Amino acid sequence: MEDTPQFGELKPPERILMGPGPSNVHYRVYRALATPILGHLDHEFMRIMDEICAMLRAVFKTANRLTIPVSGTGSAGMETSFVNVLEAGDKAVIGINGVFGERMADVAARCGAEVIRIDGEWGNIIDPNRVIDTLKKHPDAKVFAIVHAETSTGAKQPLEEIGKILKERDTIFLVDTVTSLAGCELKVDEWGIDICYSGTQKCLSVPPGLAPITVSEKAIRAMHSKKSKVQSWYLDLNMIERYWGEERFYHHTAPISMLFALREGLRIILEEGLEERFKRHQTVGDYLKSGITELGWRLFAREGHRLPMLTSVVLPSGFNDAQTRKRLLDDYGIEVGGGLGNTKGKIWRIGLMGETCRHKNVDAFLSALRDLDK
Amino acid sequence: MEDTPQFGELKPPERILMGPGPSNVHYRVYRALATPILGHLDHEFMRIMDEICAMLRAVFKTANRLTIPVSGTGSAGMETSFVNVLEAGDKAVIGINGVFGERMADVAARCGAEVIRIDGEWGNIIDPNRVIDTLKKHPDAKVFAIVHAETSTGAKQPLEEIGKILKERDTIFLVDTVTSLAGCELKVDEWGIDICYSGTQKCLSVPPGLAPITVSEKAIRAMHSKKSKVQSWYLDLNMIERYWGEERFYHHTAPISMLFALREGLRIILEEGLEERFKRHQTVGDYLKSGITELGWRLFAREGHRLPMLTSVVLPSGFNDAQTRKRLLDDYGIEVGGGLGNTKGKIWRIGLMGETCRHKNVDAFLSALRDLDK
Repeated sequence: MEDTPQFGELKPPERILMGPGPSNVHYRVYRALATPILGHLDHEFMRIMDEICAMLRAVFKTANRLTIPVSGTGSAGMETSFVNVLEAGDKAVIGINGVFGERMADVAARCGAEVIRIDGEWGNIIDPNRVIDTLKKHPDAKVFAIVHAETSTGAKQPLEEIGKILKERDTIFLVDTVTSLAGCELKVDEWGIDICYSGTQKCLSVPPGLAPITVSEKAIRAMHSKKSKVQSWYLDLNMIERYWGEERFYHHTAPISMLFALREGLRIILEEGLEERFKRHQTVGDYLKSGITELGWRLFAREGHRLPMLTSVVLPSGFNDAQTRKRLLDDYGIEVGGGLGNTKGKIWRIGLMGETCRHKNVDAFLSALRDLDK
Repeated sequence: MEDTPQFGELKPPERILMGPGPSNVHYRVYRALATPILGHLDHEFMRIMDEICAMLRAVFKTANRLTIPVSGTGSAGMETSFVNVLEAGDKAVIGINGVFGERMADVAARCGAEVIRIDGEWGNIIDPNRVIDTLKKHPDAKVFAIVHAETSTGAKQPLEEIGKILKERDTIFLVDTVTSLAGCELKVDEWGIDICYSGTQKCLSVPPGLAPITVSEKAIRAMHSKKSKVQSWYLDLNMIERYWGEERFYHHTAPISMLFALREGLRIILEEGLEERFKRHQTVGDYLKSGITELGWRLFAREGHRLPMLTSVVLPSGFNDAQTRKRLLDDYGIEVGGGLGNTKGKIWRIGLMGETCRHKNVDAFLSALRDLDK
């Protein structure tokens, strides 16, 4: 055909991925991605599926049977979490202090739920006592949802007190751990979290494309007692759990290569050890925070509630956000994230997640920043 | 941790993937998968996105601006197609002669639509005149949906006559080309198809995980005039088109590695040439059909309406379906598909898609079958 588009070899430039995700990927994960695939109903593949679930349980610190990777990115994990339990007329109480809390409210409303907002200041946490008070006023809430690590602000939400209260109630405790999983302490079972989802491209250091999720028996009961069909066929856990469970009932074709990659990423995490990995994220994150404040920049998220793996900094006045980020990217191969929503043009979000979380990357970034300031 | 699960190196066995998908993957696609990633908002990545869209347009034979890969498998493409145009109270006429037509009806009903079924015999087509008559009775139908290549039966549905009628009407012509795209003739614009989705793991020969979709201006108008919000946040094209379009508005993190893979898969297809590729699928498919009938097996799909890339065969009486497929897989490394739904235990589905579609694979399969029969 004369109008056939022709493009050359794939040759992307090398990057240090210090944005809010994706993070850099270990060569072993790339090797797994490049491994010739199996069919999604092959018994050898099913063994691999079971191994992935077992490793996800270890990373989530849960014994939940229904612990699987959803076939989409983190936002598909969010949608899966809501559509499987909420239906028209349900009440959902949602803590909102950033873009991802706001997204939760949007997703819940699309399920026909009445959303009760607990709004909080961006960069700060939502006081657990406010949450507990609100939940007392709405004992019939089907779900309480909140983000553990707000990727848009860099704040880390405390969850334990809330979980302690919700363990005794019917309200489902739904938590977004897209940015926190495998980067800082998270104890799904001990903290009483009922539905917890994440993404692969942050501290798991696997390319984007899968959303690990874990669902407690309490949440499964709510799911099974839902009157209407789940509005999403693709994300309907009633069917998906039959594929990942013993029955191996065909639902949709699993994203096999991405699952190979996730398996290898999880192996690397467990080889390092979760506690060691958390310590590394804390140490390297602190190293960045002290380095950048020494350069005169101010941290955005409130002291005492800062994420180790994502540091938000306030841009100096008169600073050219877009142009400087472009120069960092083109001249130094370093990606950082700009602000989202309210904070666009006002902050940067600097990620140190998974493989990216190394002192050498902080050094390269701070040195580039000094250069650009000349 | 003492209870940390430990698993060995990823070492899946080699397979000839002759099931109904996934198909085998070219080494260049694996190399693309293993290419270090970029961020999803990197301008170098956006160039790659544009290249993918241009190549998808060539493969779909369309000029549709909104031609993109959805971040999920083929079933996510199906759901995207329905949820973006249907809402409660709409009428959807659906042709159903296999599992995937049935799935369409399920997805449309979950949108709150009234589903008007045109049921047809499995293994046969649905007579276009029946479709046209039904559409005359329901001029207010928002959507008419049908499967081009029914993966559950091996039948190929003619589309041109129906498209000719629907071009003149408001009803949206929605077609599933999961198994047909890049394996046999498909002319989205010329045939008047308004929404057309596919999957990467069939004749595109890219691992499963993405769903190419193309949407006409007529369908975009319907999408924009929908009164209620799209019930799926993750699959809401109103937002997704802003990420793939000039605005580059952040929606969700794109599955970067899979997109690298799709780009390489599309390059390989266009290097071969679509017409050459269709001819290869026809020739090799015919070679299998004549080989297996020579062995005394009967073809399931009706003569004149058989897919080139997926051959359905009736199992001889007394044949042990599960055990023979397991032996084919374990002893010969060959995967074929069993029947789905009504045809479970009664037919096999033998795929020759994309890279798998080679004479040598047919020879290996027929020879294994002769062996097993001894």
